[in-house]
Amino acid sequence: MTNDLQALTQALRDFAQARDWEQFHSPKNLASALSVEAAELLEHFQWLTEAQSRDLPADKRAEIGTEIADVFLYLLQLADKLGIDVIAAARSKMLVNARKYPEPPVLPPG
Amino acid sequence: MTNDLQALTQALRDFAQARDWEQFHSPKNLASALSVEAAELLEHFQWLTEAQSRDLPADKRAEIGTEIADVFLYLLQLADKLGIDVIAAARSKMLVNARKYPEPPVLPPG
Amino acid sequence: MTNDLQALTQALRDFAQARDWEQFHSPKNLASALSVEAAELLEHFQWLTEAQSRDLPADKRAEIGTEIADVFLYLLQLADKLGIDVIAAARSKMLVNARKYPEPPVLPPG
Amino acid sequence: MTNDLQALTQALRDFAQARDWEQFHSPKNLASALSVEAAELLEHFQWLTEAQSRDLPADKRAEIGTEIADVFLYLLQLADKLGIDVIAAARSKMLVNARKYPEPPVLPPG
Repeated sequence: MTNDLQALTQALRDFAQARDWEQFHSPKNLASALSVEAAELLEHFQWLTEAQSRDLPADKRAEIGTEIADVFLYLLQLADKLGIDVIAAARSKMLVNARKYPEPPVLPPG
Repeated sequence: MTNDLQALTQALRDFAQARDWEQFHSPKNLASALSVEAAELLEHFQWLTEAQSRDLPADKRAEIGTEIADVFLYLLQLADKLGIDVIAAARSKMLVNARKYPEPPVLPPG
Repeated sequence: MTNDLQALTQALRDFAQARDWEQFHSPKNLASALSVEAAELLEHFQWLTEAQSRDLPADKRAEIGTEIADVFLYLLQLADKLGIDVIAAARSKMLVNARKYPEPPVLPPG
Repeated sequence: MTNDLQALTQALRDFAQARDWEQFHSPKNLASALSVEAAELLEHFQWLTEAQSRDLPADKRAEIGTEIADVFLYLLQLADKLGIDVIAAARSKMLVNARKYPEPPVLPPG
């Protein structure tokens, strides 16, 4: 994992420990919190058209950035509890996806 | 953003482009897919006790690692579409959280 | 609550009891399962356009009916555990919504 | 479907029509809103133990009743758009579940 992600993960550990929140941070509860944050992110989009979602005003984009951060922070905490390296897991999954959905051939012009 | 995340983001762009999937990847749809993957992650935990979730067998942990990867890959794609740096957003949100939930004082012994 | 809903609720109680599943059916776990089923329902729509979602083929509609049933069955079980009458709760909420979003005036023609 | 559910469904139609919200109520969007409400329901439970969730204080129970209503109202609207009878769908699914998870035999004492 990269230095940035390791530093974030360590900061999250320190944050939870200083507040005695580790008792609440079972993987079960973190997965639940992650899912709730993902829904808060989705809520911003639920009544927009797809076209509107591709062209958000700056203030809306900033709010959504905060929700993305919330999802990411719980994802890092859950991965940390389970000893999972998110970068390595993502790379492995991309290889699986590449086999599952082979690239279509590029057709010659004409 | 770190090199690892930049490389993953670029690989995701290339993957979608080669399959002509960009038409489906509106931020609205990506937020929906992210939420669905977060629920698939949660599904692994729904009937476990918290204690069981803290002590998963290796095979279960591997399956969950794959779900974490799915969430992460959609999160990176959504952030990329919106021009959001997930590391910077996460750091900002941690500062907000630190103000919102101040560290309790360490009490002297006795 | 109506006879139909009471009968369904009783059938769900009997079903869980006969399988000794009550130990798993804490409100926390049922809320989690409900959320997971709602995401499985959403999954059917995630790559469709809104227009496509308004014009589903019959087989897709049948699959979605099954997911709707899954959400409904967990909703009834959760409400039952908490002693909540879903019909009464729905009516109350509609009154709240009517105050929150007043009906716009009908403008006279011309 | 029962009279109560038919009346609720009709009230939801009238409510949306009077506010010109039908344009937003594609099945895709309703499924998204349903999923978001299910997560708001789950949020009440995320840091509770299962034991706490089985023994909620009255005010918390009332708040959760409101969230259950929100989920139910979107479920009815989505089912209405798709022409699905939720009671019939629930009964069918219970038959499927009964075949999938056969009742364990009752063992004789001793």
